[in-house]
Amino acid sequence: MIGIFDSGIGGLTVVKALMEHLYGYDIIYLGDTARSPYGTKSPETVKKYALENTEFLLSKGAKIVVIACNTASSVATEIVAENFDVPIFEVITPAVELSIKTSHKQCIGIIGTRATVKSCIYEKKIKEINPQARVYSKSCPLLVPLVEEGWLNKPETKMIVKKYLHSLKVRQIDTLILGCTHYPLLNDIIQKKIGKRVSIIDSSIAVASNVKTFLEKHWELDDMLGKKSRYTFFVSDVTEQFEKTATSMLKRNINLEHVKI
Amino acid sequence: MIGIFDSGIGGLTVVKALMEHLYGYDIIYLGDTARSPYGTKSPETVKKYALENTEFLLSKGAKIVVIACNTASSVATEIVAENFDVPIFEVITPAVELSIKTSHKQCIGIIGTRATVKSCIYEKKIKEINPQARVYSKSCPLLVPLVEEGWLNKPETKMIVKKYLHSLKVRQIDTLILGCTHYPLLNDIIQKKIGKRVSIIDSSIAVASNVKTFLEKHWELDDMLGKKSRYTFFVSDVTEQFEKTATSMLKRNINLEHVKI
Repeated sequence: MIGIFDSGIGGLTVVKALMEHLYGYDIIYLGDTARSPYGTKSPETVKKYALENTEFLLSKGAKIVVIACNTASSVATEIVAENFDVPIFEVITPAVELSIKTSHKQCIGIIGTRATVKSCIYEKKIKEINPQARVYSKSCPLLVPLVEEGWLNKPETKMIVKKYLHSLKVRQIDTLILGCTHYPLLNDIIQKKIGKRVSIIDSSIAVASNVKTFLEKHWELDDMLGKKSRYTFFVSDVTEQFEKTATSMLKRNINLEHVKI
Repeated sequence: MIGIFDSGIGGLTVVKALMEHLYGYDIIYLGDTARSPYGTKSPETVKKYALENTEFLLSKGAKIVVIACNTASSVATEIVAENFDVPIFEVITPAVELSIKTSHKQCIGIIGTRATVKSCIYEKKIKEINPQARVYSKSCPLLVPLVEEGWLNKPETKMIVKKYLHSLKVRQIDTLILGCTHYPLLNDIIQKKIGKRVSIIDSSIAVASNVKTFLEKHWELDDMLGKKSRYTFFVSDVTEQFEKTATSMLKRNINLEHVKI
């Protein structure tokens, strides 16, 4: 059973990618909607929340855990891995590796929440692999609320995306990492505003592919193989908005279970 | 000592109004930044947070408590008043009373978070006083993140405010309640977009005036009279953004103390 958590709905882009890549695995998702968003909060607070979320997923039987939130991946992966003895996946490394493979000029842009950008984790990981790479980041704090409101195609959203991407565009990046699991929902606008020639790296697809590779090597976790996958969704706060957006994202009806964390 | 809480920085508009109206009282403020915002969360979750925040303020010596958050005022005033034996002030009633006094046509608009608007608390309270009044509400969920980002004068903010106010404008309201303590920071844009002839009711000023009247009648709470006021600020998560915005709003340097709730 694969446990996945995020601050809210963003991580469902990872669930969707896993559903498309993997068959026969159970997925248990936790959206920490009672305390979302994480991107505006301090590292200490996000660490505390990440530990509590992981503990919850393990108590429900998860054998591996995916931190499907860039903010939590940036600041809390280490502490989660230290505290729990299961494989922990995060969304940063797969996106970094894919961006380096993709970028011709090794000139890579990153957009994310304020917490993610401030952590400089993408720059650090890219430079570990290629110290010559040029890396530019831009925090885009308003994109999460715009996505959560479902303002995916409004003129105001387009203006705000354009404003945020301006500084990366003038740097002539050829590859852009969507460093927040909410952003794939704005993929078309982002592609249009940054320019057609820039390759966009979606961290949710990148991590799903890594999880798949890992599971193919670890048959001992495959006790569900051949069975029908079961998907369970927990939220720490039940709101209509979550249900609405989740149903439209995953294109299926989902049952939300409320949990106190 | 007056205890005040809000989900984040919005309640500082109430602190500011109290500082301007009252002398010689200590104020202790709690911004529940680790769990903000409240406006997108369910009533059950907001009630739980409001009870915990009130308990904290009382443990620090508060003798009266002001719920300086419209969302918490809407859904949690009753449960807070039932559970604690101190005077509880909320931001809804003072704004309602002032709007009815102000409106010539008794045609009143309200803007607030999704949770506040959904609670219908303003309509209920206005109709209790004047069943003939016409009341129109509009939820404006993106205004809180825009204010928290400090986007107080950007073209995108103006467009979004205009879009939100459109349905109230066509109803020809003559009075508009700012049903969220963040919104006074957008007062100028709101006045421009709704029209000069519409009176704007700022709930933070309305509640400060009510607290002042109450204290003038309750001399037994005046043990600090004549002394210099002390202001203490607690937050459940320390972020740079809060400190920056708070300092610029209150026009003074403030010390933030971190507290776990």
